[in-house]
Amino acid sequence: MATATTAAPLSHASAKPARLGRTLPPGMAHARNPATIQRIVAAAEKIFAEQGLDGARTDAIARSAHVNKALLYYYFRSKEDLHRFTLETLFGQMRERVGAAMEESAAPRDRLVSYVNGFFDYASAHPNYPRLVQREVIGRGQSLHWIVQAYFGPLYRRLAATIRAGISRGEFRRVDPQHTALTLIAMTVFYFAAAPVLAELWHCNPLASGRVAARRRSVLDFLEHGLFQQGVRAR
Amino acid sequence: MATATTAAPLSHASAKPARLGRTLPPGMAHARNPATIQRIVAAAEKIFAEQGLDGARTDAIARSAHVNKALLYYYFRSKEDLHRFTLETLFGQMRERVGAAMEESAAPRDRLVSYVNGFFDYASAHPNYPRLVQREVIGRGQSLHWIVQAYFGPLYRRLAATIRAGISRGEFRRVDPQHTALTLIAMTVFYFAAAPVLAELWHCNPLASGRVAARRRSVLDFLEHGLFQQGVRAR
Repeated sequence: MATATTAAPLSHASAKPARLGRTLPPGMAHARNPATIQRIVAAAEKIFAEQGLDGARTDAIARSAHVNKALLYYYFRSKEDLHRFTLETLFGQMRERVGAAMEESAAPRDRLVSYVNGFFDYASAHPNYPRLVQREVIGRGQSLHWIVQAYFGPLYRRLAATIRAGISRGEFRRVDPQHTALTLIAMTVFYFAAAPVLAELWHCNPLASGRVAARRRSVLDFLEHGLFQQGVRAR
Repeated sequence: MATATTAAPLSHASAKPARLGRTLPPGMAHARNPATIQRIVAAAEKIFAEQGLDGARTDAIARSAHVNKALLYYYFRSKEDLHRFTLETLFGQMRERVGAAMEESAAPRDRLVSYVNGFFDYASAHPNYPRLVQREVIGRGQSLHWIVQAYFGPLYRRLAATIRAGISRGEFRRVDPQHTALTLIAMTVFYFAAAPVLAELWHCNPLASGRVAARRRSVLDFLEHGLFQQGVRAR
């Protein structure tokens, strides 16, 4: 059985968040079988979400991905390596989805609406995301540093800059841009993070498409009235 | 050293959330030294927040509370018993603080403003609360069931009913009451839950009183414009 000292061609890529995105990162192009890696990462995402880094076992991840453990360690040097790679893949996908949505149009109003829509699409397709993020926030670990530097920070600054631009163009009310960016993030993220509570409360699946659609409408409506000037709202 | 089978007069009280509140519950009136119990619970709150139920050790809690472990087991039958008692004490305090704030006045508008103010006061005074709640949400454990039944459910329904009342009195816009209640909770809770991220982002303590005050103003401003009718807003 391979150990943590086995050569791991992919583990270097995982230390370079900038190289990761929705598709497999460049470092993985040399891998023998990208489909195998995708299967390992999909299994890891689910098991790390359920059990955390400490609780998860690579045996269980390998079994769930239908690979043997030696192969898992061929691709990833250690459980920690696989964990970081899994998080970076998820965050890279989030950045790509939300970033692309925000670039589609230039008006600040449309950029914020696209942010909400982009995040709802992303979160609906990635149910493990909130739990993995919450684990890192609770753990106060080293990972929080690079997650904020590479992902949360740029997104937050982009939202705040968009709000500032909207205020100076007269599209938005004069609000605190930093706190309003946080409010916008809170309104979109909270629903997905609180899904287990809502399932208990409503006795249904809060992630069913009809319910997510109702949530999205309510968020956009609240944003429109909370931030947009009346003239902009009526468009 | 006492074991888990030692008589534990207080462990029964911990199974009855309705009896807990800001002050020590009635079941604890017979205890030899309420100050000792308060010290144990304060230490437990901090250590459970940092390490979770599985990670926390009663040795460490006893040491931090300056009691010996036998005394801890005299009051609490097990680590699980102490954990539940700690959560119920925190939730009871939250309900008392937020509930009292909402009863102070009858108009729906004022009740929502009081909810925000009550929650901000509570969360500022209880920095371990968000992390303890997040652990239960992530863990998807049995505790989530009673937490939702006894605490989150009643609060959520009260907020939704207040929003419905405000709509029918013409104070609020015609919004989805359930989702708007969630948005209100999201705007208030998120800041405290995301505090470790904000500390990384801003390189400062987001729980410092000036920063919390700015957050509170921004939430009340957004609520006013997002929900209240203009006539009500101007009051």
